[in-house]
Amino acid sequence: MTHALQIDGELLLNDLEQLATIGADPAGGITRLAYSPADTQGRTWVATQMRSLGMDVTIDAAGNTIGRYAGSESLAPIVLGSHTDTVRQGGRYDGALGVLAGIACVRTLHAHGIHLRHPLEVVDFAAEEATVLGTLGSQAMIGELSAENLAKPAYDGRSCAEHLREAGFDPTNVAIAKRAAGSVAAYLELHIEQGDQLEYQQHKIGLVEGIVGIRRYSVQFRGQANHAGTTQMARRRDALVAAAEYILAVRDIVSQHSIVGTCGTIAIEPNISNVIPGLALLNCEIRGMDSQILDQVEQLLVAEANTRGGELIPLAAKVPVAASPMLRDVLARCCAARGLSYQRMPSGAGHDAMCMASIAPMVMLFVPSRAGISHAPEEYTTPEDCINGAQILMDAVVELDTAMLI
Amino acid sequence: MTHALQIDGELLLNDLEQLATIGADPAGGITRLAYSPADTQGRTWVATQMRSLGMDVTIDAAGNTIGRYAGSESLAPIVLGSHTDTVRQGGRYDGALGVLAGIACVRTLHAHGIHLRHPLEVVDFAAEEATVLGTLGSQAMIGELSAENLAKPAYDGRSCAEHLREAGFDPTNVAIAKRAAGSVAAYLELHIEQGDQLEYQQHKIGLVEGIVGIRRYSVQFRGQANHAGTTQMARRRDALVAAAEYILAVRDIVSQHSIVGTCGTIAIEPNISNVIPGLALLNCEIRGMDSQILDQVEQLLVAEANTRGGELIPLAAKVPVAASPMLRDVLARCCAARGLSYQRMPSGAGHDAMCMASIAPMVMLFVPSRAGISHAPEEYTTPEDCINGAQILMDAVVELDTAMLI
Repeated sequence: MTHALQIDGELLLNDLEQLATIGADPAGGITRLAYSPADTQGRTWVATQMRSLGMDVTIDAAGNTIGRYAGSESLAPIVLGSHTDTVRQGGRYDGALGVLAGIACVRTLHAHGIHLRHPLEVVDFAAEEATVLGTLGSQAMIGELSAENLAKPAYDGRSCAEHLREAGFDPTNVAIAKRAAGSVAAYLELHIEQGDQLEYQQHKIGLVEGIVGIRRYSVQFRGQANHAGTTQMARRRDALVAAAEYILAVRDIVSQHSIVGTCGTIAIEPNISNVIPGLALLNCEIRGMDSQILDQVEQLLVAEANTRGGELIPLAAKVPVAASPMLRDVLARCCAARGLSYQRMPSGAGHDAMCMASIAPMVMLFVPSRAGISHAPEEYTTPEDCINGAQILMDAVVELDTAMLI
Repeated sequence: MTHALQIDGELLLNDLEQLATIGADPAGGITRLAYSPADTQGRTWVATQMRSLGMDVTIDAAGNTIGRYAGSESLAPIVLGSHTDTVRQGGRYDGALGVLAGIACVRTLHAHGIHLRHPLEVVDFAAEEATVLGTLGSQAMIGELSAENLAKPAYDGRSCAEHLREAGFDPTNVAIAKRAAGSVAAYLELHIEQGDQLEYQQHKIGLVEGIVGIRRYSVQFRGQANHAGTTQMARRRDALVAAAEYILAVRDIVSQHSIVGTCGTIAIEPNISNVIPGLALLNCEIRGMDSQILDQVEQLLVAEANTRGGELIPLAAKVPVAASPMLRDVLARCCAARGLSYQRMPSGAGHDAMCMASIAPMVMLFVPSRAGISHAPEEYTTPEDCINGAQILMDAVVELDTAMLI
């Protein structure tokens, strides 16, 4: 019977519309920067929706908004989460869709007067977009939001701690937001893909195998600055030429290993049109699901740098996080039952799910992003795809509720 | 008999030492920026040397210091020139050697009480290093120092006109510095190579076939900025990758055509480590003696840009300037007579000779630069090489004086 539970697509779309009016940026898109008044206003609106569906709402010490819809047994909750903060001039789907789809699931249960065996929580994580690596709220929930991370500059250069304090939270107190490993039965996150694979492959749902590991490097090439007119080609040591060869080597090596890699920044000296560049600095990053392959690629990138007299300096590393195969199989069955074509894929971007995996079985599902664009006003997912995603979330929650013992 | 005229090497070296004390930079090297007090002090010292050898000294409207040693017949002068202004923290040979070698030639004649048939002039050109393309003084002497060029920013961002005015000259009056075509019998300039070909080939003298033409371009590549994690390699439009391929194409194409070419500046957007570059801007220049080859290379560079969705925009072009074959042959004979090995070569850098070629037969000779370094405190040419250069200049002047009819 419960498999017939249909989410109300119109109300979901209406929620997306409503939330998009909060923080609407005159310059285009939506600006609800973490811990800003617009962000708080958005979360207040979310909490209001939650309460109207009979949920208890808690704001934890890091600002995560947690709505809880009671279960009929004393079990750990199934958690549906994402975030409603945005980048500057972001889109209306990134984060918001996952939170509002969770609310849509609860609304369906509430409309039918159903309570599942498990409590069902919807979490609007705080500050997912606050920094380049983000996910402050979910870091707090797993007890890993360090003072060091809080001291990092947020989108405007001021520290995350300062933003937290301004929003009325005590940055020295975030540890109490921690939830224990095993205290969550399952974590599911619906998100837009932020890539164009689903669109390109014409699949409706992406089943996320995990969240890629990221390694970031600084790569330096020292050549010899010299006169661009009097120095023969054969005897130049042009740092920009070395960097150019390297940029292409990065592209080729990551492609051969079926991962992605990017040189996103470059700076050269002296950067004068009639002087051969004597120094080139690149920032380079690679992302993949398999740490062994990342190791292999890293070794090749070190060798390519050394061959050209360059030096690779590791800046940061995040290990890959695997999704739960069991949860992924549940999602696959739900897609098949609804006749929605799907594909397995890694998530190339970080998400709150990445943190939650350390305390719970985790899975994510993606719906298509038009042209792969996100973090921009042009971000778009069709109404049909939004509703599909929420429906699969609903179906999966019902199946898990029956199957899971904790 | 005159062929036995030996220049006094010790006095030449002494002059180089003396001049190097003027504008000695506490941070290293020599700083006699065009029209600055240090530059004026250097030129005053040069004029004093000239007068002590019986020369008449004129400072023209652009600040060129012209010393004239009388000839016995009413002929156009043979002119030996270069410049004593420097870049910031420059070396002691670039420019200075040519002027002081000219003075050494006159000193030799004066010591022997000899006057040649032709007047012999030594010109210390003004503001050779004032801007990236330089040679303001010689431009004035040929009547091509435009108001537009004077308005260009000098080394410190202020206009050349402002510097000229500050040094006591009237920038609206530079036209009167013009000398007519044919009013100079021959122009010879000794200069350090500013490259390492002579050192590498172990030749003592470079006979300059001409001064290369320069073409400068802006090359733009537009890709698509996108998420560095979620965008598959095969569907990226990475502007930095396009630029990297282009940088290597420039290197390969110019090498195949035996000219030089350099991408000296690069800027990308958004220049963030986790975003695929959406825009890349290069400054690119090519230099060569043959305009037809420059045309061919330019066509290939346009095609390479277009192939990658890029665009090449010409910024500036200077045509190649050929040396006088007759004068070059004279220099070759003088080298042979002195047992000095020589090679023909283009000048990859601009020089006052480039301008003077429009009013007189012109030739340049190079002496080796250690490691090809110039415009830096490390600039170095051996005493022997300095003396060799001055001696060939002396020998050539004597031979020309006999041979030339004007």
